[in-house]
Amino acid sequence: MRLADSFRSERFGAVRIHELQRVIELDSGTSVGAGSQIVPAEALRAIESQMVIVVPCMNETRTVIEGVLSGIPHDCLIILVSNSDRGPVDRYEIEAQTVEQFCRLAGRSAITVHQKDPGVAAAIKAAGMPEMLDDDGLIRNGKGEAMLLGMALAAMTGRRYIGYVDADNYVPGSVHEYCKVYAAGLHLAGSPYSMVRISWHSKPKLRDNRLFFSRRGRSSQITNEWLNRFLAEYSDFGTEVIATGNAGEHAMTLDLGLKLRLAGGFAVEPYEYMDMFEQFGGVLESTDPDVMASSVPVLQIETRNPHFHDNKGEEHVQGMRMQALNVLYHSPVTLPATRQAILDFMVEQGALEVGQEPPRERTYPPVGTLDLDLLYDALDAEALSFRQPDGQVMAGLPASPPIDRAQIPRRVA
Amino acid sequence: MRLADSFRSERFGAVRIHELQRVIELDSGTSVGAGSQIVPAEALRAIESQMVIVVPCMNETRTVIEGVLSGIPHDCLIILVSNSDRGPVDRYEIEAQTVEQFCRLAGRSAITVHQKDPGVAAAIKAAGMPEMLDDDGLIRNGKGEAMLLGMALAAMTGRRYIGYVDADNYVPGSVHEYCKVYAAGLHLAGSPYSMVRISWHSKPKLRDNRLFFSRRGRSSQITNEWLNRFLAEYSDFGTEVIATGNAGEHAMTLDLGLKLRLAGGFAVEPYEYMDMFEQFGGVLESTDPDVMASSVPVLQIETRNPHFHDNKGEEHVQGMRMQALNVLYHSPVTLPATRQAILDFMVEQGALEVGQEPPRERTYPPVGTLDLDLLYDALDAEALSFRQPDGQVMAGLPASPPIDRAQIPRRVA
Repeated sequence: MRLADSFRSERFGAVRIHELQRVIELDSGTSVGAGSQIVPAEALRAIESQMVIVVPCMNETRTVIEGVLSGIPHDCLIILVSNSDRGPVDRYEIEAQTVEQFCRLAGRSAITVHQKDPGVAAAIKAAGMPEMLDDDGLIRNGKGEAMLLGMALAAMTGRRYIGYVDADNYVPGSVHEYCKVYAAGLHLAGSPYSMVRISWHSKPKLRDNRLFFSRRGRSSQITNEWLNRFLAEYSDFGTEVIATGNAGEHAMTLDLGLKLRLAGGFAVEPYEYMDMFEQFGGVLESTDPDVMASSVPVLQIETRNPHFHDNKGEEHVQGMRMQALNVLYHSPVTLPATRQAILDFMVEQGALEVGQEPPRERTYPPVGTLDLDLLYDALDAEALSFRQPDGQVMAGLPASPPIDRAQIPRRVA
Repeated sequence: MRLADSFRSERFGAVRIHELQRVIELDSGTSVGAGSQIVPAEALRAIESQMVIVVPCMNETRTVIEGVLSGIPHDCLIILVSNSDRGPVDRYEIEAQTVEQFCRLAGRSAITVHQKDPGVAAAIKAAGMPEMLDDDGLIRNGKGEAMLLGMALAAMTGRRYIGYVDADNYVPGSVHEYCKVYAAGLHLAGSPYSMVRISWHSKPKLRDNRLFFSRRGRSSQITNEWLNRFLAEYSDFGTEVIATGNAGEHAMTLDLGLKLRLAGGFAVEPYEYMDMFEQFGGVLESTDPDVMASSVPVLQIETRNPHFHDNKGEEHVQGMRMQALNVLYHSPVTLPATRQAILDFMVEQGALEVGQEPPRERTYPPVGTLDLDLLYDALDAEALSFRQPDGQVMAGLPASPPIDRAQIPRRVA
C-alpha cells in the first residue's frame, strides 16, 4: 500500500494528530522509492497476523455479511458482535451460521457473540464491569457497548491490534482497503500506543434518482468542526487537523485500547479523541507515565473506496451529532469558551432549551480493568451465543482456537 | 486470494470452459489448506509483474479515472486507450495529465494514447492492419477497436499477460479485485493459452429511489443463453456453463490474445468465445497445432465486489445484445438449428424483419500479424497522443520505459 506523505501534525500533550493522508495505491507491489510512504506486503502481513477485526452487526442480510467477511484479510481474526433481533426468526443464528460457513470455506477461525445474551452480561459483571448492564441485567444496547465487548474478546486472544469494521457495507473491496489501511497506519505509526482513523473518500447518496458522491457526512462535519475548535482554543491557532471525529472505521494498538474509557452508543468514536486528550493531553495529571514518555500518534487516512452502505435516516445522524457535542461539553479538559459556544450552538440547533445542560453520555472504565480469566470462564460456561468456529478443525486439521485459555494475558490497567 | 474449487468444465475441442468459481477471500494471507484454491501473494505478484492492464476510456471524470488507477496493482503496467472528446475542452489531455500525475505519485510508468489520433491510424496502417481505418482514415470508433489497440501496445512491452478494466468504475476496490482475479486465474489455468473472464457479484441499480442489487445484466443473460445453446446443439446436453459471454472485465495470456481475431464494437467480448471455438474447437481445421496440442482453459470467476458504474441506458444494452447474436449467427461453426433459432428470436424481439439476415459484425486479423517494430516507430514519430509517462524518471531515478525499442518481440502469427 502506498500513502501520500503526511507533513504536518498537531500535538496535544502526548497525543500527536497527523493531518489526513490519502491512499495513492491499494497495492504498491514490489516498488521502493521516495516521495510517498510505501508499506510493503510483508509489513502489512506482520500487523494483520496480530490484528483482530471486530464487526459490530445489527440486522444485516447474509449476503452483506458474507461480503464483509470476504474482504477481511485472512490473517486477521474476525470477531462478530451482534445486536440483531432474536425473535421468531433468530437473526443471530443466521449470522453465526454465515460466519461458521465462511470459516469452513476459508479455513480460518472467528468468534461470534450476541450483545443481549444473559450469559455475556453475567460474564461482564463477573469480570468487573457491572456498569455495562441495564435494569434488565443485560448488556446495554449501543454501538460503544458492542465495541467494548469486542475489545474485551480481542484482549483475550493475546493479539496486539484491534480494528473496527461496520457490518453494513456493500463493498467488500472497501472493507479490504480499511484493513490494509489499518495495517499500513499501525506499521507507520511506530508507537505501542497508536490509532488509525479512516475518512472515506466519498459516500454515495441517492438524490432525485441519481447518485451523488458526497464528500463529507453531515454528522462528521459538525463533530470535526467542534473538535478542532476545542484544539484551537488551547493553541490560539485555528485548525482543521481533525477529519475523523466520527470515524466508525478505526484501529489501534490494544496497548492503547485497553487504557481507553469507551463511551456508550454513538458517542464512542468522538469520545476516543476526548479521552486521549483527558488521559494523555498533559492538561490533567496523567496516571500513565509510560504513555506520556512515549507518544500517541493518531494517523488519519483517506481511503480510495466510496463508503457505500444503507441509509439509516436523519434521526440517526442528528443523534450522532449531539452525542459528540455532549461528550465535548462535559469533558474536564474542554475550556470554558468552547463549552459556552457548544451551548449556544445546541440551543440554536433546537437541540437544547436555554438554561438546560447537554445530557452526559455514559462512559465505561478501561477494558484493561476487566479480569479476562474470569470473563472467559464465565462466557465459556454461561454464554450460549459465544461461539468460536474453527475452520481448521472442520477440515480435520489441528485446532487453532482464537482464544487459548492458558495464554490469556494478565490485566494491564 | 482464495477461490472456490471448480469441479466441472465443458470441453469444445481444445477449449475448456470452467464452471463459474466464486472468490472466497480477497486476501488469503499466509494460509495453506485444502478444499479451496489458494493463490499466494507471491504467485499473484509473479503474474502481475508480467501483466498489462488496458483501460478503455471514454469521457470519464478525473476522479473516477484516478480511482481506477489507484486500484491497479503497482506491478501491472497501465495502458489507457481513450476515445474521449477532444473539442474545446480536450478531455484526452486531462486524462493524460491524470495518468502522468498518478505515475509521478506512485513511481510507476504507463502508456496513454487516443484512438482518433491520425498518427495512430497511420501507424496501424503501416503495421499491416488497414482494416481498422474508417473512410476518414482514422481508427474506427468502438470498444473492440480500443481493445485491439491496447493489445498491440501491450505486445510491444514484451509482457506476457493482458487484462481489461473499464474506466467507468466507481469502486477502486473492485478494480483491485479484478486484477487480483486475473492474476489468480492465470496462475491456476497453467496453460500458455489461458483466459480469465469475470462475472461480477451484482450490479447496483436505481429503482424508485432505492438501490437494487441486480445479479445479472440484461444483455449478459441473453448472450450467455445463446452461447450455451450453441454448445448444447453440439453435445446434445443442455448446459449453463458460460456465464461470461459479455464480460468486459477479462484477461488472457498474450500468447492466446495475439492469435485471436477481435471483433469491433461491443461484439468483441462474445466474439472471443466464438473465435476460440472457430480456431481451436476442432470443428474447422486448425491452423495452430501448438494450441491444439496444449489446451485453452477459460476460467470464469465471480467477484465479491458489486460492479458499480454509470448507467449507459437501454439503447446501449440492446445494441450489445444484438451484436452478440450477430456474431453467433454468422459463425461457420454455429449449427443450422442454432442459426434458425437465432433468426426466430431476433424477429420475435423486433430486431429483424422476416426474411432478413442479421448484419455481420466487423472482425480484424489477429494482433499477432502486426509488424510491431513498424508500429512503434510510426507511433513514436507521428502519434502526438502517444505518451509514456515514467514516474521513475520524474523522481530522478533510472528510466523504466514500458516499451524498449530494442526488445520489441518479433511478430508471432
